Amino acid sequence: MKLVRFGPVGHERPGVLRDDVVVDVTDVVGDFDAAFLASGGLRTLARDIEDRDDLPRHPAASIPRWGAPVARPGKVVCIGLNYAVHAQESGMELPAEPVVFFKAPSTVIGPEDDVLIPVGGTKTDWEVELGVVIGGTGRYLASEQDAADIIAGYCVSHDVSERHFQLERGGQWVKGKSCETFNPLGPWLVTPDEVLEPQRLGLTLAVNGRTRQEGSTESMIFPVLEVVRYLSQFMVLEPGDLINTGTPPGVGMGMNPPQYLQEGDVVELSIEGLGAQRQRVRQATR
Amino acid sequence: MKLVRFGPVGHERPGVLRDDVVVDVTDVVGDFDAAFLASGGLRTLARDIEDRDDLPRHPAASIPRWGAPVARPGKVVCIGLNYAVHAQESGMELPAEPVVFFKAPSTVIGPEDDVLIPVGGTKTDWEVELGVVIGGTGRYLASEQDAADIIAGYCVSHDVSERHFQLERGGQWVKGKSCETFNPLGPWLVTPDEVLEPQRLGLTLAVNGRTRQEGSTESMIFPVLEVVRYLSQFMVLEPGDLINTGTPPGVGMGMNPPQYLQEGDVVELSIEGLGAQRQRVRQATR
Repeated sequence: MKLVRFGPVGHERPGVLRDDVVVDVTDVVGDFDAAFLASGGLRTLARDIEDRDDLPRHPAASIPRWGAPVARPGKVVCIGLNYAVHAQESGMELPAEPVVFFKAPSTVIGPEDDVLIPVGGTKTDWEVELGVVIGGTGRYLASEQDAADIIAGYCVSHDVSERHFQLERGGQWVKGKSCETFNPLGPWLVTPDEVLEPQRLGLTLAVNGRTRQEGSTESMIFPVLEVVRYLSQFMVLEPGDLINTGTPPGVGMGMNPPQYLQEGDVVELSIEGLGAQRQRVRQATR
Repeated sequence: MKLVRFGPVGHERPGVLRDDVVVDVTDVVGDFDAAFLASGGLRTLARDIEDRDDLPRHPAASIPRWGAPVARPGKVVCIGLNYAVHAQESGMELPAEPVVFFKAPSTVIGPEDDVLIPVGGTKTDWEVELGVVIGGTGRYLASEQDAADIIAGYCVSHDVSERHFQLERGGQWVKGKSCETFNPLGPWLVTPDEVLEPQRLGLTLAVNGRTRQEGSTESMIFPVLEVVRYLSQFMVLEPGDLINTGTPPGVGMGMNPPQYLQEGDVVELSIEGLGAQRQRVRQATR
């Protein structure tokens, strides 16, 4: 199943995408949020809407705006340096165990919303990532099978990063990861039954039509199920949480010379089977 | 005004503490959460309950459990090494600008709830901190006055830390800051009109009756208003967000030899005018 949310910012409605038609399921689920996931609503959704001919239907092409496919997460957990070649281009050592950091949940926006270069930012960079949305509670998970059981679905996630803030302003990475608009998400949340090989998905990102990142989740150092199991040893994962699983090589910081996003740039990114994003870059103002 | 929340985990009710009596304000505000703060409810609360003789009243001594005084924050932002002597005892350099990291919001618990040593944890440490709860939206704040305008109140915050996870497991600090139960909060959220000198508050923490931390917010390198202004340059602060403003010297990691929390220990901490916490330490089980 492909879950979407659509409509104006702050007033998104939940829908199910089928054959280029969005079935508006607001009357059935309210929203795709933590409460919906915690209640197990995802398991019964297909059945719950089976005979509902009364639900509004819209051609996907007529939707003016897509929101993030899930409501704001309780936390956004990120894995750093999870592709060996990206660790190299960043000048960092290969991690012996997953590198973990957080983004502010307030960074999450729709997949076609504008990305803002923060005031004072000079090195705003792109990172296409496989996003994993958690559907259950994960606490000291014992196995990768237990990890699989709490995954609600997969989506495209753009982990936008301001390298000057992240690396040159002292302290921890979070400072360059949490600016407003820094996590476009979606367009779809695709349930695991439709993502048969999550570790064989092609990822790609282009800036102004020129391909910058191209990789496969095959190259992850720590695969998705291991990441979920691992994280649950350090924190309680909860329904609605988002995990960004790391970026393949090709970020702006790794280019020679480095190249960063400028006002007016267009970033396009996609993951096999999970849809595509497109953002215009603008300069934030105070 | 002193705001409290009381009742069983997940079913806390909001109250106002006056002369050792809790006025249950559930009927007036619903909860002390982001929506309440965003609506400006804090400004009118005193007036809204003035003539409400119908509201339930309970002696504070009869309350079986205090919850955190605000509902779960959207984010928990922490300032590292904000007291010079604590930076020294941690073997770290004095920061040129604030060091920022996040804790998972799911760590927030009541001020007298048990603190759990995580499975695999060997160096669980204490940190008394002045907590600041945000009451408005903070985005590129221009001045300390603007920062003051979005502070909802102050509270005692316990930034529990597992040093083995934080410093010896690779990557960023978040790994040792986000374990379940790692942020006891409260008992009171005290509004700024009752905290006349937030930069002259004594903080203290004892383990099993022996004082371990003793300091004053006077010794902060970056004072509260500067911290709030600074953070808003890197992220959007929102109603309900919690900021932990750093810990004075005296943590277990800084002792010679280092000393950490053990099952059965009792931690007591307090800040002048903001009340006291008391937690029993237990070992987490899978």
